[in-house]
Amino acid sequence: MKINHLTIIGIGLIGGSFARALRRANVCQRITGCARSINELKKAVELGVIDDYSTDPAEAVEGADLVFVSIPLGACSEIFEIIAPALGDQTIVTDAGSVKGSVVESARRYLGENFSNFVAGHPIAGTEKSGVDASFAELYDNHRVILTPVEETSSEAIDCVRELWELAGADVDMMDVERHDEVLAATSHLPHVMAYSLVNTLSKMEKSGDVFRFAAGGFADFTRIASSSPQMWHDIVFANRNAVLELLQQYEDGIDELKEALVKNDSTFVMNMLTDAKQARDIFADNRLQRQVNPDTEEGEE
Amino acid sequence: MKINHLTIIGIGLIGGSFARALRRANVCQRITGCARSINELKKAVELGVIDDYSTDPAEAVEGADLVFVSIPLGACSEIFEIIAPALGDQTIVTDAGSVKGSVVESARRYLGENFSNFVAGHPIAGTEKSGVDASFAELYDNHRVILTPVEETSSEAIDCVRELWELAGADVDMMDVERHDEVLAATSHLPHVMAYSLVNTLSKMEKSGDVFRFAAGGFADFTRIASSSPQMWHDIVFANRNAVLELLQQYEDGIDELKEALVKNDSTFVMNMLTDAKQARDIFADNRLQRQVNPDTEEGEE
Repeated sequence: MKINHLTIIGIGLIGGSFARALRRANVCQRITGCARSINELKKAVELGVIDDYSTDPAEAVEGADLVFVSIPLGACSEIFEIIAPALGDQTIVTDAGSVKGSVVESARRYLGENFSNFVAGHPIAGTEKSGVDASFAELYDNHRVILTPVEETSSEAIDCVRELWELAGADVDMMDVERHDEVLAATSHLPHVMAYSLVNTLSKMEKSGDVFRFAAGGFADFTRIASSSPQMWHDIVFANRNAVLELLQQYEDGIDELKEALVKNDSTFVMNMLTDAKQARDIFADNRLQRQVNPDTEEGEE
Repeated sequence: MKINHLTIIGIGLIGGSFARALRRANVCQRITGCARSINELKKAVELGVIDDYSTDPAEAVEGADLVFVSIPLGACSEIFEIIAPALGDQTIVTDAGSVKGSVVESARRYLGENFSNFVAGHPIAGTEKSGVDASFAELYDNHRVILTPVEETSSEAIDCVRELWELAGADVDMMDVERHDEVLAATSHLPHVMAYSLVNTLSKMEKSGDVFRFAAGGFADFTRIASSSPQMWHDIVFANRNAVLELLQQYEDGIDELKEALVKNDSTFVMNMLTDAKQARDIFADNRLQRQVNPDTEEGEE
């Protein structure tokens, strides 16, 4: 497969790594970048991530065979609206947003006839870093990418986006939009909200400098995700608000049960709760390890 | 400094690593181990962690200059009661429990005249693994150990325990018993409870195998601590119940504020909350890194 002209809107960790991975696979003739910051775009050219750039999204997508949108979720509607008139009939559009319901809704609304060439996607990969500096070609290797096409989506567009991700090193899964947002709320959005919230709880404690001073490696692991981009996570929690609220409630219900057990001195309940969790976590870790050792197995995910 | 006879009650990750670290420093003539499981004790001898052993705590401490108690918190009272009559007048006793209030109370109650030679301690180090197999000499290198002596504690006993920990590679801090339990509830006990509870929340979701399948590296980091020993954490949360309950409440209050902001569409609140947390986490990470690069600085902690 060859893509003559790929345009990437948003040259950060995700967009930059997508470009690098496709360069590694020698798939694209030309990669055009688009971003607000001209400095980031210049840096991306210097790093060899893109060939040329424009700060104007409509100009950037002109003549593109494929447009990859990797920007904060809150900016998607506006970008779709701006690029829609400049897209070719056959131009395929895909994205990398962490929530799919809101993106599909925006695409349906603004992409018009191009909506059937829009394939919503979500690579389950990333680090707490951001910016094109942080991008690297191996980011997607053996990581899952979830595509959430809808009824109208053309099978040619799906096949193209799937193949591109596979060339970028990823394993592609298909999922319903709603299911995706529910699953990701549980495994990603809820933990992020929890980590941010924990750090804030501790910051508010008196002498919190002292508190953090005595935090250990477990705390560092636990809170690493709270160093992610606030703008990105702001957009994610609002875009997936209902699922996040529902899961926060379920989580608080669990915490309330535990508090009650502590107050009642219910040793058995607490012991069972901790044992069940350890068991589930160990199975997850084993599957993940197995997948790293043998990337072809279907279980686990890094 | 030389210790003729060290007895370690509980030869797991913590006790085993203490023995290995002191062997590395060539401090002890003889190390006696005590545990319930004769297999673990035999393994510890084979690994060179201890020289000899007894499954009887009273026998094990006979003639010991120093007794190191590294067992689940729930077993401390019983052990203190059993060893008290067998301790020499000058025998120093210290422990490694994650909660200090309950341990100091038990020691005061059961160690009798030896209580002035008891130095409560807590190494801020560990992994999610347990057992003597998991122990290693470097576990305490550049990690903090908090000692929480009380009014009655003899300064000779404090100096001895401090020096031993320093020889084991650790940096020693002093803290009030109550302050220790409050700080550790925040930085360690609360995050552990949160991680165990998150894994359980997800396990309860339908098709949770599927849910875990799409979890990424951030989730793995976030839940790593939920693979720790359930018995150990059961004992910790009960031993520090009041501080844990208080912090869970503060944490839930923070979550409730966030939920309200989501419902109200209060974008500014959410953005500030995420930004504040990232800032605090980044400062913590910087200090930690600085400490790893230059272990003599006073800030940060692995």
